[in-house]
Amino acid sequence: MKTPIPAPALERLCSLYQLLCRMEGEDLVRVSSTELGRRTGQPAHTIRKDISFLGEIGNSGAGYEVSRLKDHLFSKLGLQREKRACIVGLGRLGSAILSSSNIANEAFRIVAGFDSDVNKLETIKTAIMVFPSHEIADVVRRMAIELAIIAVPAARAQEVADRLAGGGIRGILNLAPTPVMVPPGVFIRNIDIAGELRILSAMSGVQLASQGHGVPCPTVLL
Amino acid sequence: MKTPIPAPALERLCSLYQLLCRMEGEDLVRVSSTELGRRTGQPAHTIRKDISFLGEIGNSGAGYEVSRLKDHLFSKLGLQREKRACIVGLGRLGSAILSSSNIANEAFRIVAGFDSDVNKLETIKTAIMVFPSHEIADVVRRMAIELAIIAVPAARAQEVADRLAGGGIRGILNLAPTPVMVPPGVFIRNIDIAGELRILSAMSGVQLASQGHGVPCPTVLL
Repeated sequence: MKTPIPAPALERLCSLYQLLCRMEGEDLVRVSSTELGRRTGQPAHTIRKDISFLGEIGNSGAGYEVSRLKDHLFSKLGLQREKRACIVGLGRLGSAILSSSNIANEAFRIVAGFDSDVNKLETIKTAIMVFPSHEIADVVRRMAIELAIIAVPAARAQEVADRLAGGGIRGILNLAPTPVMVPPGVFIRNIDIAGELRILSAMSGVQLASQGHGVPCPTVLL
Repeated sequence: MKTPIPAPALERLCSLYQLLCRMEGEDLVRVSSTELGRRTGQPAHTIRKDISFLGEIGNSGAGYEVSRLKDHLFSKLGLQREKRACIVGLGRLGSAILSSSNIANEAFRIVAGFDSDVNKLETIKTAIMVFPSHEIADVVRRMAIELAIIAVPAARAQEVADRLAGGGIRGILNLAPTPVMVPPGVFIRNIDIAGELRILSAMSGVQLASQGHGVPCPTVLL
């Protein structure tokens, strides 16, 4: 019997996986849900509940074995199957992501790039295959690409999302500074760097009700 | 009497501000809280409550005037005061952000850049002033810089955050793929592009309990 898991729990479990990778690097062997909570900014009971969605693992009373919990999450979250990804928009931001070692990880591999500027496709230096944007749906289908990163200007983002969805994409990370709509069955994450800076600007520009700790939910006076 | 506002409401109000800017561009004159909720993925009563934190504005029964609500948010969120920002790490991601028109907006102006590689500082082509990383605290203080973007490798991120905090920074947007700790009074937003792709990979790699709509909280079977 499969247990349904809400998306916010899935997000927290992915963060937990990253934390466990770091803890393994720090040679930590065993960790309590309290400590995991402290390092992720979540209550310990939320940590235990999230982990329980993935089935039986260890005994949270005696703490979790770091490596075992990490491997458990890796397998249950389906991260062992590397997914093919593409990037749309090979301007400065898209190219930077393509070549950034900060972005590389085990969950996906970027196999294709798209741009509407044919001159750019001819001159770009990259090991991945590049295609004009009007071929998005065909290429995504043919190469069985599951994930996409959108790094085009705001005005082009929705059209690109539509083409990706048309090719059967499963998940989209949208870096354009505008949200995009996707059909049912396609997952979308919007990251708006300018919007995040606007939030910081508002947070740091208003009077504080109490000193925040740079952690979730400081209270702010307007 | 000032009303305290929780940070999540502040975040939603910033998103609402961005939506209102787009609506103004679409020549929309009046909008209901229901429509604002539909376009932001929030219940209408949350929209009304968030707006009420900012004091009296219009009558939500007859809907809001788009331009008036936008100007109200702009002023109450303190966005009319452009804040000075810096970027630490002038590698591909940092340089891309520096020159990206997707990032530019009214809330901040990037006035300085830092990198630990002195050769890079001598060869980079940019209109902003650049400095070696060991001068971060001094320059932030001297130039009255309030916001910072961290675009360095994970291993350097905490050290950079400490230096920024030492210079009196108010808010940090951390793009390094590891969270950083900041002292009380400094706001932090962590954007982990690789982590977001991992979440998408997990979401798209597992069986769905019901069809998600690419909107908040699809339920997922593991």
